[in-house]
Amino acid sequence: MTPKDSVAGKLKANAERVERFIEELLEPRKPEVLYEASKHLFAAGGKRLRPYLVLKACELVGGDPDIAVPYAAAMEILHNFTLIHDDIMDNDSLRRGEPTVHVRWGVPIAIASGDLLFAKVYEAMYRPAIQGTLPCDRVMKSIKRVTDAAIAICEGQVLDVSYPNASDVSEEDYVFMVGSKTSALFEACAEVGAIVGGGDEEQVEGVGSFAYDAGIAFQIVDDILGATADEETLGKPVGSDLREGKKTLMFIHALKNASPEGKATILKVLGSAGALASDVKAANMVLFESGSIEYAKEAARRYSANARAMLDYFPDSAAKEDLLEMLEYFMSRTY
Amino acid sequence: MTPKDSVAGKLKANAERVERFIEELLEPRKPEVLYEASKHLFAAGGKRLRPYLVLKACELVGGDPDIAVPYAAAMEILHNFTLIHDDIMDNDSLRRGEPTVHVRWGVPIAIASGDLLFAKVYEAMYRPAIQGTLPCDRVMKSIKRVTDAAIAICEGQVLDVSYPNASDVSEEDYVFMVGSKTSALFEACAEVGAIVGGGDEEQVEGVGSFAYDAGIAFQIVDDILGATADEETLGKPVGSDLREGKKTLMFIHALKNASPEGKATILKVLGSAGALASDVKAANMVLFESGSIEYAKEAARRYSANARAMLDYFPDSAAKEDLLEMLEYFMSRTY
Repeated sequence: MTPKDSVAGKLKANAERVERFIEELLEPRKPEVLYEASKHLFAAGGKRLRPYLVLKACELVGGDPDIAVPYAAAMEILHNFTLIHDDIMDNDSLRRGEPTVHVRWGVPIAIASGDLLFAKVYEAMYRPAIQGTLPCDRVMKSIKRVTDAAIAICEGQVLDVSYPNASDVSEEDYVFMVGSKTSALFEACAEVGAIVGGGDEEQVEGVGSFAYDAGIAFQIVDDILGATADEETLGKPVGSDLREGKKTLMFIHALKNASPEGKATILKVLGSAGALASDVKAANMVLFESGSIEYAKEAARRYSANARAMLDYFPDSAAKEDLLEMLEYFMSRTY
Repeated sequence: MTPKDSVAGKLKANAERVERFIEELLEPRKPEVLYEASKHLFAAGGKRLRPYLVLKACELVGGDPDIAVPYAAAMEILHNFTLIHDDIMDNDSLRRGEPTVHVRWGVPIAIASGDLLFAKVYEAMYRPAIQGTLPCDRVMKSIKRVTDAAIAICEGQVLDVSYPNASDVSEEDYVFMVGSKTSALFEACAEVGAIVGGGDEEQVEGVGSFAYDAGIAFQIVDDILGATADEETLGKPVGSDLREGKKTLMFIHALKNASPEGKATILKVLGSAGALASDVKAANMVLFESGSIEYAKEAARRYSANARAMLDYFPDSAAKEDLLEMLEYFMSRTY
């Protein structure tokens, strides 16, 4: 079995109990349309990496993953809330092969659905404290952690929309942006799992750093795939990132390091929604020629190695194996 | 001194320490534009009724209002978050005489500003627990209370946008809508104040019911003012509610009880943004003639009396006087 198959099976098995919790938490009330819209993206799919991180981090510090299910649900709900609002902000009309929430129900209901999900994040989290199944201070620490991550995500999203295109973005900005948007949530997932599992501060920070660096590696690999995978694997046209002017590490590197002709080839299509397929192909070739793909791969490897090192602190366990396997799976997507 | 002057002075005095807390909580970080947009509506004014309710409810149950300041701030922030998102959803371009956030900064930043404020509501609330200045269980109960209110507000807002105009709305729907949108927040303010003040369940519920009914009375009076006040007092054109097709108790009553000609006169301008001033005036006259203004006044009086009765349970105190005076001020706005 490849790491991909093995991880996929584990993600699915762990997702089931989390999904049951979400289903119950989002039991429709009046007006039904609000709940229907809120649940749209869950039904459309997703890998459920974030809840997996929560459950495995809880297990890593010796906690019973069952107690972490509401927090795994909270993080998946938080993720979906940010997707709904991001899609409005980025004017994206497709997500997971489905029309986005604002396309299907209109902007007002999409805004309210995101807001409802954000509130439901906290409902999922406060419940174990109110029911007395988890100590109040652990729950409070989780609430702090999730709130701080949500603030970082808002900041990251605005940074993202404030740069009209990649040519204004430095590599430092890129890492800060990915850090705020993707990794802050990965990190929070792992830390929340460790907190509810009863981990001490060092354990919480350790697994959090693992997830943060793993998150950056994950995002870089995602960006590489967007430029190199074939259309079928990707599920969207190759070169979408270029056409959308997305700020990826490869474009940032290429705009600094390619030949003047190479740069011109990229700038011709970067952020141009109607760019010709042949021009996009030429621009993608520049990414290879300028060493930008290799550069991004190397960066992903570096973040992955850093992440792996963060788990050295923990004694060997099944949960540690699972987390390392997940990291391997992130990296295996390109190599 | 009229109740209005007296209450206004107290609102202002209490608002100051709450505003200092908000200012510190929203200390700008990168990207500054997000923080600037988030703070826009606070600077534009507002009566600060909600934080006042929090502080006074805390005092009513014998708590030191100082400990309630972060929660008073949280409720004012929650209110401002809902205003920013509501203005996008309702496509409103002016609020408190200023351009709305999405008009000034665009929809993406307005969505993110609201989201940031929502997260900041929880940051304000978790702080006293993390710092150890309030017992964890009281803070957790407040978090539950605010979360449940936020869910009700999302539901109320979607109900509001789902009815294209008042002719489809029953009086029961109206009370449910106002209940979800305005009163749910008033009630949560009072309950949160009583919870952090150490009130028992009966006290929390009692002052919550007071605030809920006071909130409905407040909203009905607001609607009446919208039809009867002169332009200067109102700060916006008389008849805006009619032109916007707002679902007020008066319109609902008039559409059921006016003569056929009267109904036609109302329907001619209801929801018609470009209606002639003379037609709006004629429609407003129908509200008087059909007894709809008087009907709404009577309803406001009824909710106000119910609210007042809810405070009978509490022994006399300065805080109780202040709350009753606030209620009197709500009602004095029309009579």
